[in-house]
Amino acid sequence: MDFSTLDPMIRPRSIAIIGASDDATRIGGRPIAYMKARGFQGTIFPVNPKRPSVQDIKAFADVASLPETPDVGLIAVPGEAAIEAIEALGQKGTKAAIVFTAGFAEVDEKGAAAQARMVAAAKRHGIRMLGPNCLGLFNDAIGFYPIFSSSFEQGWPIAGRIGIASQSGAYGTHVYSLARKRGIGTGVVVTTGNEAEVALGDVLGWMAHSPDVDVICAYAEGIRDSEKFLAALDLARRNRKPIVMMKVGKSELGGAAAQSHTASIAGDDAVTDAVLNEYGVVRARNTEELLDIAYTATKRIFPVQNTLGVMTVSGGAGVLISDVAESLDFPMPAMPEAAQAKLRGFVPFCAPRNPVDCTAQAFNQIELIGEFTRSMVEEGGYTSCLGFFTQVGGSKTNAPKVRAQMKAVMKDHPDRLWALCIIASDEMVREYEADGFLIYEDPTRAVAALHAMGRFGEAFARVASAPPAAPAVTLPAKTPTEAEGKRILTAAGIPAVPERACADVDQAIAAAREFGFPVVMKILSPDILHKSEIGGVLLDVNSLDAVREGFSTLLRRAGEKAPTAHIEGVLVAKQIKGATEMALGILRDPVFGPVAMVGLGGIFIEVLKDVAFRRCPFGEAEAEQMIRSLKGFPLLDGARGRPKADVAALAKALANLSAFAAAAGPRLAGVDINPLLVLPEGEGAYAADAVLEITP
Amino acid sequence: MDFSTLDPMIRPRSIAIIGASDDATRIGGRPIAYMKARGFQGTIFPVNPKRPSVQDIKAFADVASLPETPDVGLIAVPGEAAIEAIEALGQKGTKAAIVFTAGFAEVDEKGAAAQARMVAAAKRHGIRMLGPNCLGLFNDAIGFYPIFSSSFEQGWPIAGRIGIASQSGAYGTHVYSLARKRGIGTGVVVTTGNEAEVALGDVLGWMAHSPDVDVICAYAEGIRDSEKFLAALDLARRNRKPIVMMKVGKSELGGAAAQSHTASIAGDDAVTDAVLNEYGVVRARNTEELLDIAYTATKRIFPVQNTLGVMTVSGGAGVLISDVAESLDFPMPAMPEAAQAKLRGFVPFCAPRNPVDCTAQAFNQIELIGEFTRSMVEEGGYTSCLGFFTQVGGSKTNAPKVRAQMKAVMKDHPDRLWALCIIASDEMVREYEADGFLIYEDPTRAVAALHAMGRFGEAFARVASAPPAAPAVTLPAKTPTEAEGKRILTAAGIPAVPERACADVDQAIAAAREFGFPVVMKILSPDILHKSEIGGVLLDVNSLDAVREGFSTLLRRAGEKAPTAHIEGVLVAKQIKGATEMALGILRDPVFGPVAMVGLGGIFIEVLKDVAFRRCPFGEAEAEQMIRSLKGFPLLDGARGRPKADVAALAKALANLSAFAAAAGPRLAGVDINPLLVLPEGEGAYAADAVLEITP
Repeated sequence: MDFSTLDPMIRPRSIAIIGASDDATRIGGRPIAYMKARGFQGTIFPVNPKRPSVQDIKAFADVASLPETPDVGLIAVPGEAAIEAIEALGQKGTKAAIVFTAGFAEVDEKGAAAQARMVAAAKRHGIRMLGPNCLGLFNDAIGFYPIFSSSFEQGWPIAGRIGIASQSGAYGTHVYSLARKRGIGTGVVVTTGNEAEVALGDVLGWMAHSPDVDVICAYAEGIRDSEKFLAALDLARRNRKPIVMMKVGKSELGGAAAQSHTASIAGDDAVTDAVLNEYGVVRARNTEELLDIAYTATKRIFPVQNTLGVMTVSGGAGVLISDVAESLDFPMPAMPEAAQAKLRGFVPFCAPRNPVDCTAQAFNQIELIGEFTRSMVEEGGYTSCLGFFTQVGGSKTNAPKVRAQMKAVMKDHPDRLWALCIIASDEMVREYEADGFLIYEDPTRAVAALHAMGRFGEAFARVASAPPAAPAVTLPAKTPTEAEGKRILTAAGIPAVPERACADVDQAIAAAREFGFPVVMKILSPDILHKSEIGGVLLDVNSLDAVREGFSTLLRRAGEKAPTAHIEGVLVAKQIKGATEMALGILRDPVFGPVAMVGLGGIFIEVLKDVAFRRCPFGEAEAEQMIRSLKGFPLLDGARGRPKADVAALAKALANLSAFAAAAGPRLAGVDINPLLVLPEGEGAYAADAVLEITP
Repeated sequence: MDFSTLDPMIRPRSIAIIGASDDATRIGGRPIAYMKARGFQGTIFPVNPKRPSVQDIKAFADVASLPETPDVGLIAVPGEAAIEAIEALGQKGTKAAIVFTAGFAEVDEKGAAAQARMVAAAKRHGIRMLGPNCLGLFNDAIGFYPIFSSSFEQGWPIAGRIGIASQSGAYGTHVYSLARKRGIGTGVVVTTGNEAEVALGDVLGWMAHSPDVDVICAYAEGIRDSEKFLAALDLARRNRKPIVMMKVGKSELGGAAAQSHTASIAGDDAVTDAVLNEYGVVRARNTEELLDIAYTATKRIFPVQNTLGVMTVSGGAGVLISDVAESLDFPMPAMPEAAQAKLRGFVPFCAPRNPVDCTAQAFNQIELIGEFTRSMVEEGGYTSCLGFFTQVGGSKTNAPKVRAQMKAVMKDHPDRLWALCIIASDEMVREYEADGFLIYEDPTRAVAALHAMGRFGEAFARVASAPPAAPAVTLPAKTPTEAEGKRILTAAGIPAVPERACADVDQAIAAAREFGFPVVMKILSPDILHKSEIGGVLLDVNSLDAVREGFSTLLRRAGEKAPTAHIEGVLVAKQIKGATEMALGILRDPVFGPVAMVGLGGIFIEVLKDVAFRRCPFGEAEAEQMIRSLKGFPLLDGARGRPKADVAALAKALANLSAFAAAAGPRLAGVDINPLLVLPEGEGAYAADAVLEITP
């Protein structure tokens, strides 16, 4: 996918402003005022039929009269005139447009129709179009400000290599404004409005491609175009550009609000999570975490095996930091014994393990800060080094000495993340930062941000295993019976429990004889999906007499509870005992297509929701990762003296299921294998019940 | 408990400083310099045998020579001299001491012995003693600064009614320093050091009692004195003073650091959580949340049924806020239909449900801000009102108008929490705050803080149900057999499954005949606690022959696997089917005594850790709350067409167990009832297996 097609939109040499205003407070005037103030390095062509000049720049009556083809057109005229402007730009040869104009799909059906016409015009001319109903964008490196936000009243963005892509205009500028207040540089902000043509994925892709951006912040309410979105995530990962994302609309309430706001298709949040994980995107829990992580990532140090070493002047903070690291699975290995002894030699009452409590003594003999730091980096080998110095590190007497001591060690080890928690004036913080330190006020946030760098590092280094070869799949015309469903799955490499569809009681007796007792008997009907709810499942059928009795019981119950159902007979299956019950499934996400699920079987999947998801298809290594991520995994792994289950067979079935779902195409609406019986190691895993939902 | 005994320590009329220094940078000099700078309203008596005056204040050679009895003595002399100072203060009649001196229990055994002598001296004279090895305290309202922190270099605390009680000196001052940077007033900070005499509970109790403090922040690594601690939490709740607490040392790593730091007894974190919940203490996840909640609580508005109404200029922020509220179970009811219609009349394209997106239009017609606000408060009836105005609310032109519009509504409804998310200069934030608004930059944190106010409100309003009457308990001399254990529990109101201890096979056959098949058979021995691990449990015993065979099988297995165990025979019990398996338990917390637990039975309690705890004893209403708090509660509540379980019987058994544990005294080391079989509604709940652990 070629994301450079947004270059004329975000990094243009010239811009035409259709609806240019001489009034710098109006939406057609603000961009011109901003670009003048920030020294836009290209040419501005105001288009306004009523004025010879706009804000002291020569204006043109229409697009056709422009002396050259502008790279991008900014449209700030209402209604139909906006569509005409797209047409005029297209005829002029312009390949990009930014549309402020509102009143389209976000309003009503009529607006949606107008928006469709606008998109058609843009596509006819090969125009990449941002909006309509967008706040615009800025690219500060070239002074480019086609945006009508009033947020610049409080100050211009700080130069920097963080890009922000946001589906919400107000929230996008909220984030950049918070960044500015915190002294964090955000060079590019793009807000996408109605996403009639350019969607979030395009913008992320452009940032992944652009040399102007190192770190990407994203705010999303719903992903519309999975292909571009996934291509963008892939490119970002290949270019080692971390993406940190706020994805909202995950709650029921939130979902409702998201719909009324931009008619977003808010995909299932668990699916979003799985997709973001797959590409190493880190999801921020709130705006501050978003900025903390982006700020930390600007160092571009992404350790693959990230470890945290902590030096502290407060035992209490050390405990707090350990708690946070533990909750994040962020390893804090102990210092080597010899190094601990050495540190004890410097300060007898220090706690040299990790966290290393150097005590206030280290600030009385400031060279000890250097000794401790060097030992932690060189002997402890930590990739993330965090010092909790609080106001002691912010004192005017201490700060220059602390900086000098630590800087000497940092110079020898520029590949580490150097972070400090200090309370200091903004000026002093800037001095520390100029030396290369990352500065946080609070240790909890510092630990979370440092931990994210390792998650990026792992994602950048990760190599996915190959999914199983795509099986040849011919789906039936409609939802099949359980037996037929299991035949289809068995052919795709998901074995089922030995069983037979029996049209009459003699066939049932023969099957039971062959499989051995006990057997399970289930009513067989394409019209009854949830058999247990009508009493259509009999367990522990232990004798030939019981088979006979069971056959008539099932038929009677089906006749009573589902009188209209077509009954094909009874399924007889070997009853397997001592297996661990798991559930596998496929759901079709409206955005990301087939997604596989694994969880503990039975009722626990619905009550405890201990499940893992991944986009199809994927290989056995990924399948095993999903299985190991379950809270209930110890049940498969020999908890409390149970035999270890055949996780390899389970992973193979899951990977095969993912390949099946990917090959089956969109008519496969869902698969529900529950339970899948996992036997002890080496003995396999077998589907005991399976429902395939087919769209006719 | 009389917490006023700390008045002379925290609110004294006079202070003697033993080891007073003329050098304002030394630990014996800093407090004097600070009190001079802050205008201490009492008398300072420097004690220094070498100087006639210290920092221009008349000094005295020793405590005995002081012209009057000081309310409190501050001890800044090393080693044995500190103990002598306690003695001298005692002889002078002083009733409070603050001991900076280090080198006691935090160092080694010898130090611990010296500390014990110091405590003995204090107790002999009725002296309340803070420390040793503490950083001190300050009470800014009277300019009292017996503290040697260097944190004041960056500024004095802001006057205010938040008190901070901290077991860590450095972390305590870190919190107050962050508060100062955020413009939050913290009037009192007390750090407790080694807690040789005064512990965290005393300080919390003093803050609960003192008219100087409205809101209490606490930082704890380990609770040492549960009696004072619980009395303090109780007093705070009765006085409607919210406590927000950071309790660290909850992870394995954290626990290790806590121990090396102050040799704390870090109680089980789940127990701590249960105790804090019981008293309505809100636990903060990090320092910022601690301060957010304390800041919000200074309004002293604690709604019992807290609802959140949100007005926003950004649909995106509305979605984000809804997500956060949902994750916290913070209700956001929709606006009444009529009110929604009215708001649509003001702004046709607004989203009037809740979040109410008033759109940027409201800032063009500023009186709409007032209309929207009044409708939300009066028609929506929200107790927590949050406006997301970001930089629009921070603009110099908008801010005064927004404030005026909202203030008019606030004046009519001062009982609501009025919160705004704006990005503005510090000065402008102070102006908003002066009007009575709570100001946050980020909506996520605002929602969490507002939500905490409702949790306080519920805790203040809560009336605990009476626990069952304490049963008469006579514990056996040592851990009893299962049968004896169940007899004891049955007597205490926790019924057991029908069963009989059978010394020989004939008794077993008679019991099985009486109960009906199937039965369960279990080996009976006081020496075998985990029967299933030696194959000592037989299920589905279905015939008299099987009883015979089972009896010999169990004896053979016990002989093989536990040859030294004393075997009393076999327990025969009715096998109950179709029940939900739960687990009840009692653990004896070293700090808080007996604590009851309830969870899903079987293997899930250990793997999934879905359990609830509460300090014993408690009533059935509290027991039911615990049961309902389980993630697996739907299993008891008719999930997937199952019959509803007898939750009332389960709650009664749990409450009775709590009363039993409270009455049994410290020899009861633990109880483990797993499974407790809960039958359908009205049919009861029966212990199927029970282990009582008795300390001989």
